[in-house]
Amino acid sequence: MSVTQVAAYAAPAAKAPLERTTVPRRPVGERDVLIEIKYAGICHSDIHQVRDGWGEGIYPMIPGHEIAGVVAEVGSGVTRFAVGDRVGVGCFVDSCRECEYCLRGQEQYCVKGMTGTYNARDKQGEPMYGGYSTHLVVDENYTVRIPDGLPLDAAAPLLCAGITLYSPLKHWQAGPGRKVAIVGLGGLGHMGVKIAAALGAEVTVLSQSLRKQEDGLRLGASHYYATSDPATFEELAGTFDLVVSTVSAPLGLDAYLGLLKVDGALVNVGAPEEPVELNLFSVIQGRKTLAGSMIGGIAETQEMLDFCAEHGLGAEIEVIPASDINAAYDRVLASDVRYRFVIDASTI
Amino acid sequence: MSVTQVAAYAAPAAKAPLERTTVPRRPVGERDVLIEIKYAGICHSDIHQVRDGWGEGIYPMIPGHEIAGVVAEVGSGVTRFAVGDRVGVGCFVDSCRECEYCLRGQEQYCVKGMTGTYNARDKQGEPMYGGYSTHLVVDENYTVRIPDGLPLDAAAPLLCAGITLYSPLKHWQAGPGRKVAIVGLGGLGHMGVKIAAALGAEVTVLSQSLRKQEDGLRLGASHYYATSDPATFEELAGTFDLVVSTVSAPLGLDAYLGLLKVDGALVNVGAPEEPVELNLFSVIQGRKTLAGSMIGGIAETQEMLDFCAEHGLGAEIEVIPASDINAAYDRVLASDVRYRFVIDASTI
Repeated sequence: MSVTQVAAYAAPAAKAPLERTTVPRRPVGERDVLIEIKYAGICHSDIHQVRDGWGEGIYPMIPGHEIAGVVAEVGSGVTRFAVGDRVGVGCFVDSCRECEYCLRGQEQYCVKGMTGTYNARDKQGEPMYGGYSTHLVVDENYTVRIPDGLPLDAAAPLLCAGITLYSPLKHWQAGPGRKVAIVGLGGLGHMGVKIAAALGAEVTVLSQSLRKQEDGLRLGASHYYATSDPATFEELAGTFDLVVSTVSAPLGLDAYLGLLKVDGALVNVGAPEEPVELNLFSVIQGRKTLAGSMIGGIAETQEMLDFCAEHGLGAEIEVIPASDINAAYDRVLASDVRYRFVIDASTI
Repeated sequence: MSVTQVAAYAAPAAKAPLERTTVPRRPVGERDVLIEIKYAGICHSDIHQVRDGWGEGIYPMIPGHEIAGVVAEVGSGVTRFAVGDRVGVGCFVDSCRECEYCLRGQEQYCVKGMTGTYNARDKQGEPMYGGYSTHLVVDENYTVRIPDGLPLDAAAPLLCAGITLYSPLKHWQAGPGRKVAIVGLGGLGHMGVKIAAALGAEVTVLSQSLRKQEDGLRLGASHYYATSDPATFEELAGTFDLVVSTVSAPLGLDAYLGLLKVDGALVNVGAPEEPVELNLFSVIQGRKTLAGSMIGGIAETQEMLDFCAEHGLGAEIEVIPASDINAAYDRVLASDVRYRFVIDASTI
């Protein structure tokens, strides 16, 4: 029950390569579970934060918010988990628990701000360290159960990439009779295709090129178009109920809004840091929505995992040893991954 | 039943002052009503179009799409109206009648494009002339009934300003327990305040200054803030379920999106012609919506008129003779009108 040092991979400073180190984990409190991490996904935002893309990074930084493992110890007051349970942790590990959003299970929009799994500080001001590590201590209320049907390695990316797509797809009613486009077929997008198809929607991938077309169709899309071809925007004008953009490059928003039906929504889960431009007539004509969505709450994350288990949906992954993390970062930046790197935590 | 020349006020060319003229009206067809126009509102967009702000203006141009009058003649197949009925015509007088939007009563979003009341061409390519005139011939299906409780002069602006606000307020569920802000207290905004308050919402006006505060509170707002004061945006952060912007000046969208609660919507019914900027994180944080809305369908316009009659809501108007139209335009551009000029058609 004392502070323990555990193995981890950390960036010692902004833009520095990650290297093996140790990290302190807090004692297992009354409501905590100690998780033996089995796998941790590499999210594009890990690279962004390691390289201090948003500024104010906290170093040393141990990234990782797509965490799958097994409960190794539980606090005396834990009621929801037992030793041996298969569990996951996503992008946040605490929130105020009192505001209207926390109370309705939208902890990700907590008025006081959720506590990020890493590159954040807890309520006592202590830095948080993420999932590129062998162990993690987390409040049971911010821990979810990974159903037996899901392999832990393929489940890890669901904790960010999965919920980031599941939440808007559910909120904007992807389902039978609805035409949904997913922009970008990367770590987020490939889960969007799988989930939207499993929800019963007719799915189209809009990708820069047709390079991954075969994959897209295999993952569940019915159609695949290259956005580098201007004819795509003419042919698909007024087609979709919902377009979910997973890309962080600036999109020509007016062109994408033109793909929507009346009352359609263009929902951004990826975004560039720079401001984007649009003509407001693109939303006025056809009462269209430009919106965004950010991960999901704890209850919804559990719902997503149960849905993915029921439909046999895991991420498409490439499992790597921890020593390959830096090389994997370079490959992610080169879009050379189909579709998510997952670190085998036993190699840390 | 032949083409008739009727009196009207027209702009003979782009940016020219309006002057008295005559205009041909088509014979009253089987499904047509001939309306003796009593009042026509002056909408800001009339001025914009007369001055060719959107380009491709059709001249001579007879503006006017806020039309209130009395039926003077009906075609043999007309079933919904009789001579003497009090009626109104808004921004469009035809549409394809076949597309999914026409069929569901969203004619304003007709796939083939609605036929505007003026500065447009009908299906035969003939130019359309608007309501600054003594008479108008319109298909009964694009004519609405003005309930007895509404004076015709105060009702005229409802055909554009009223429905432009009613439609998004209903769609985004303004009502009891909801906090709604109206940006801009002009012709559109003052109807937004009246309608939102009548729907039961708690209404806040966001205006550049506090100059019209007394009016805003009298019209139904509970709160009134100046947007020129940066403290407004701090104090009201995260407050509103719905913000409806009626202004055509470019807004700082990120600041206005910051006023919304989680899942809130910023709906634009006014818009600048130039592109606007926003940071997509402003919608991602809090799953917010940036949307637009354009007038309303025929059935919804009727619903709006019935609602306004039931709640005693007319526009705040200043009735003018036709000879004052050009002076009124200047005053509209100087924001010197509370809150809508209405032309007395008997003076044309």
